[in-house]
Amino acid sequence: MTLLSLRSAVSATASIAAIMGVMAVTAAPTSARADEGMWTFDNFPIQTVNDKYGTRIDQAWLDRVRNASVRIQGCSASFVSEEGLILTNWHCVVGCVQELSSPGNDYVKNGWMPASREEEKRCPGQTAEVLVDIVDVTDRVLAAGAGLEGAAFNAARTAETNTVQTEACAGDGKFNCQVISFYRGGRFALYKFRRYDDVRLVFAPENQAAFFGGDPDNFNFPRYALDAGFLRAYEDGEPVESPGFLRWNPNAPAEGDPVFVAGNPGSTSRLLTMSQLERLRDQQLPLTLIQNSELRGRLLEYSLTGDEAKRISFDPIFGLENTFKAQYGQHQSLLDPAFLGARRDAETELRGRVAADPTLVQRIGDPWAELEGVQATARELFLSVRQLEQAAGGGSTLYQMARTLVRASKNTSMTEAQRARMATALGAETPISTDMEEIRLRYWLSKTREYLTVDNAEVKAMLGRESPEALAERLISGTRMADAAFRAQAAAMTTAQLAEADPLLAFIIANDAAATAIGARWAAEVNAPTARAAEKVAQARFAVYGTNQYPDATFSPRLSYGRVEGWSYRGVTVPAFTRMGGLYERATGAEPFNAAQAFLDNESRVNKETVYNFSSTNDIIGGNSGSPVINAAGEVIGTAFDGNIHSLGGAYGYDGALNRTVSVSTAAVTEALRNIYPNPRLLEELGVR
Amino acid sequence: MTLLSLRSAVSATASIAAIMGVMAVTAAPTSARADEGMWTFDNFPIQTVNDKYGTRIDQAWLDRVRNASVRIQGCSASFVSEEGLILTNWHCVVGCVQELSSPGNDYVKNGWMPASREEEKRCPGQTAEVLVDIVDVTDRVLAAGAGLEGAAFNAARTAETNTVQTEACAGDGKFNCQVISFYRGGRFALYKFRRYDDVRLVFAPENQAAFFGGDPDNFNFPRYALDAGFLRAYEDGEPVESPGFLRWNPNAPAEGDPVFVAGNPGSTSRLLTMSQLERLRDQQLPLTLIQNSELRGRLLEYSLTGDEAKRISFDPIFGLENTFKAQYGQHQSLLDPAFLGARRDAETELRGRVAADPTLVQRIGDPWAELEGVQATARELFLSVRQLEQAAGGGSTLYQMARTLVRASKNTSMTEAQRARMATALGAETPISTDMEEIRLRYWLSKTREYLTVDNAEVKAMLGRESPEALAERLISGTRMADAAFRAQAAAMTTAQLAEADPLLAFIIANDAAATAIGARWAAEVNAPTARAAEKVAQARFAVYGTNQYPDATFSPRLSYGRVEGWSYRGVTVPAFTRMGGLYERATGAEPFNAAQAFLDNESRVNKETVYNFSSTNDIIGGNSGSPVINAAGEVIGTAFDGNIHSLGGAYGYDGALNRTVSVSTAAVTEALRNIYPNPRLLEELGVR
Repeated sequence: MTLLSLRSAVSATASIAAIMGVMAVTAAPTSARADEGMWTFDNFPIQTVNDKYGTRIDQAWLDRVRNASVRIQGCSASFVSEEGLILTNWHCVVGCVQELSSPGNDYVKNGWMPASREEEKRCPGQTAEVLVDIVDVTDRVLAAGAGLEGAAFNAARTAETNTVQTEACAGDGKFNCQVISFYRGGRFALYKFRRYDDVRLVFAPENQAAFFGGDPDNFNFPRYALDAGFLRAYEDGEPVESPGFLRWNPNAPAEGDPVFVAGNPGSTSRLLTMSQLERLRDQQLPLTLIQNSELRGRLLEYSLTGDEAKRISFDPIFGLENTFKAQYGQHQSLLDPAFLGARRDAETELRGRVAADPTLVQRIGDPWAELEGVQATARELFLSVRQLEQAAGGGSTLYQMARTLVRASKNTSMTEAQRARMATALGAETPISTDMEEIRLRYWLSKTREYLTVDNAEVKAMLGRESPEALAERLISGTRMADAAFRAQAAAMTTAQLAEADPLLAFIIANDAAATAIGARWAAEVNAPTARAAEKVAQARFAVYGTNQYPDATFSPRLSYGRVEGWSYRGVTVPAFTRMGGLYERATGAEPFNAAQAFLDNESRVNKETVYNFSSTNDIIGGNSGSPVINAAGEVIGTAFDGNIHSLGGAYGYDGALNRTVSVSTAAVTEALRNIYPNPRLLEELGVR
Repeated sequence: MTLLSLRSAVSATASIAAIMGVMAVTAAPTSARADEGMWTFDNFPIQTVNDKYGTRIDQAWLDRVRNASVRIQGCSASFVSEEGLILTNWHCVVGCVQELSSPGNDYVKNGWMPASREEEKRCPGQTAEVLVDIVDVTDRVLAAGAGLEGAAFNAARTAETNTVQTEACAGDGKFNCQVISFYRGGRFALYKFRRYDDVRLVFAPENQAAFFGGDPDNFNFPRYALDAGFLRAYEDGEPVESPGFLRWNPNAPAEGDPVFVAGNPGSTSRLLTMSQLERLRDQQLPLTLIQNSELRGRLLEYSLTGDEAKRISFDPIFGLENTFKAQYGQHQSLLDPAFLGARRDAETELRGRVAADPTLVQRIGDPWAELEGVQATARELFLSVRQLEQAAGGGSTLYQMARTLVRASKNTSMTEAQRARMATALGAETPISTDMEEIRLRYWLSKTREYLTVDNAEVKAMLGRESPEALAERLISGTRMADAAFRAQAAAMTTAQLAEADPLLAFIIANDAAATAIGARWAAEVNAPTARAAEKVAQARFAVYGTNQYPDATFSPRLSYGRVEGWSYRGVTVPAFTRMGGLYERATGAEPFNAAQAFLDNESRVNKETVYNFSSTNDIIGGNSGSPVINAAGEVIGTAFDGNIHSLGGAYGYDGALNRTVSVSTAAVTEALRNIYPNPRLLEELGVR
């Protein structure tokens, strides 16, 4: 799960959610076998784990871990000192590193390691959140949608959800209150997060240390990656106090040791019905893979045009290749007859047990058939809603910001405070590459024309008499949206004023009615009936299998358990550990298998026996990147940064024999801070002698 | 079926054949309904057609059409004057146009229209072939393979096939003798072609005239494309005599008129078994689409780097986008439950009828089950055989030529004459773009590493300590293979000398054992058992349904029948004709919807009522491009250049309600030669007053 770099993380998460067409979350599996499960902190199988691993987990242990666990944009993290120091992955902070860089100061390449705390720099837009309270609000949310359908159902639900959130946070900006749907609508809970919005970059190694092996090694193991970085949360200009931090253990675990991963798995689809999975397999994933491949080719070719192009495109390519590989793996699992057959059998069993119980049939009807009907609608609308709304702009940052402005200008229910927050957010300085923006926009326009066809009314309206290439060039070269001051100012404009002020805004405004219309149809005709039917499936599962289940991932705090372990596949056994010396053996000198300069310079100092990366049976998925890996004593012993190739099917199911979490050990981070990137200041703060 | 531009045609055809993993051809459909069928000239349903359309087709009519029909590289064509003048599509000659062009003389953009016959220039490597004899050799071929399996079966079949061909042509270079498998091994025939290998370019319009609408309009209708071009066959420096040519009818047909298309459909898979289709759907097509998309992105981005890059990449992008769209359509048809369900029903019926006949069971066994077993092997080997052998080089021309040299140097059974022919072919001057070669090679190397993984032994051997990018750069910048004189000289070298002489040759030699080994496994473990089982399926079909069937396409001469007709889909009716005036209405001025300069300059002269393109119910597929469209009187009234979007499923089945052939009318070509690209010389030769 080198899943999510910081910035692409946000959009990746958003687009995954959009792609899934999922408002709610998933129902739980038949039964939690092996080390399966991304458990909520209020329903962790304490007894099961203690029995299996001889640990002594209790509620107090869980609370400590929860209070030290941090959610950041698209990733996970943890407090590791009492002064707000946060451990996460390098790839979760590289977006920030890139934003702090410039043509002359390439911190992505050279690493970011300020000598003093005063030089720690703020990461634009970065927040850190700690879950402090969970309140069940299932009854309120279900009551709000009762008896309603389509757009009315969505509106009632959204209104009630907003009310719950507003009441709970009471306008206090130090908190973020979020109603989250679990078990695909089986349960709704208010999650209250303590929120820090001044988060600064403390340490990032050279990209070649963190990203050694690049895309070819991504989702593979053995690995040799120092995919770790540090942030620090500040408030009122001072580091926050974080007394409940996880103690840093500089020693590696042993094979078989029980380990816990606390983080925010982004999205799983383990309890989608067969008809939903088949649509993903036959329509959504292939189309997404094909389009992403073309964009990948465009970006790769662009990256070869010069050093600056290479620098600028590093993070976007990294994010795209990561998303591509994850989705490719997901698609492969859905194409595997054995894998899908097991899902089919499980569904048949559940449906059979429901059918055998007249009361249950009476209560829930046949949501599987309902969802099958919804898929026909989804197939019909998918291309349009994807091209015109969900994936509109092709990942262009300027387009995204411009659309935010346009939609806000038309939103009469937005408060002054909300508008001010938007102005602040949009007014933040952020480096924009005109080249990358233009590539993305023309890619999106040309694919939209290709898939919706030239004679489609929306396509005609978008392109007029221009080509995708000429239109993209005109909009990007003409827009003022790259100017932060203009964006802040534009936040106060009316729709008409926006259209006057800027060609990109004018373009979006001209085509926004069509985009919002197809988005509204999707919400009413796909999302709403999906949510209603999925709730019934969840109720069936609770009725048949009880509540000892974990919900599908929802990018909210979860805990998984497991042990340090390698695996065997087709006669090949992969050991659980790699050692730092292995890096030097694997390095060829050619990208992306060139060792980082500091690793080469300090080779004689490095203890090559140090455990570098390790694999464990924990059940995680994209969004878990940066999660602390915790031993039974509650100490941090690593940070999870990837899954093995088999874990990609984890979107749809967990296989205890093959799915593995891949982490960088605190032992390796400690060794690096001692002998590769010497940093006594951080070592002292981590309590390492 | 803007399927095949001249050069990409050759490789596209080759790679399609390779992709299909098909040695033999297909069994015939249950029954020929509607206007279905790509019939051989010796089994045309004369009575059916005459009854349905009131025509008076007879064997003499068929012979005349066959003698005027021409097979060229990757395309079809026809003689249209008694002095060797050949009509085909512009997109079938654009490869030649591009080869005759240079940075200062861009005939692709400006058109090729020499004032005199003396200025007609030879198209390098271009041949023209006319089918003159068909001999059934089924018994000989079947006997050769009897009782054998795997590699021995392949070897015996190949040897016998070579013997038949050698005997028939008796070393006469004016003929090409080819044993072709029909009905996927149900029948084998020797096709003897009269061959012309001096073919010159006579006329090609501006690309914007021929390719108006570009990729967005490809496989769509209504269309406004002057996709026509002329070649001329020469022998001994003089135009060949072609008294059996098709007379040029400068008038458009009427709606409902019966029309015939004579050409060389490349490949269909209408009678693959379900297990074969499922592997295509789940493995081969998705992988191919994904990889081609990335290459497409790379080429598109490259094409934007400058005018020369755009010029050079025009034809490759065109070919790639065309292949992509065709395969995308094929994949969509296999993902359509109704479409595949019909195929499944047909298979179930045939298997049921076989099972009900003990004699038949005795004779053919269960080839469907055998083919299912073969698919498991194919799934296992596919990625390796594709990356290391079938798609090796990623379309690099230099790689392809170098591999030819390497394999020839190791081939001890090659005759001196064959070696001399190879030297002549490889020694021909051909423009090579270093940029394009490098893009293709690094794309191939990086995808091979991605799909086979870094730790794969073959990948390690290929890359050594280099990156795909650095290796591609080193091989392409260092190779002498772009020098025609060197290539001719290299044809006489030993393998060791080749390895000495050139880094690209050395690279191929170093990795060739692995490539040929996986290729041999594929041939023995996939192709051979597929051929044997497919023959049995074909025998079952003959036994159950009789011989009134057409075989799958094999890029050999066929005739299809139908009528001029539009179609209706989802309430939208598409008329059968477009008029030349429509071009001016559709033109936006932006690529690819900008009208050609000569069309703009001569707008006032053009008769806008002239029928431009028309659709008909003929059953064709890629390879049919350039086919003459013939009326009942045996006159040419157009040249087929495309199918509509529904015809893409034609790879797997024909739907008479929706599948359409799209042709440019001789009326429009005549109008263009009169008033847009005035050419009295050609008009006179065509007999137009």
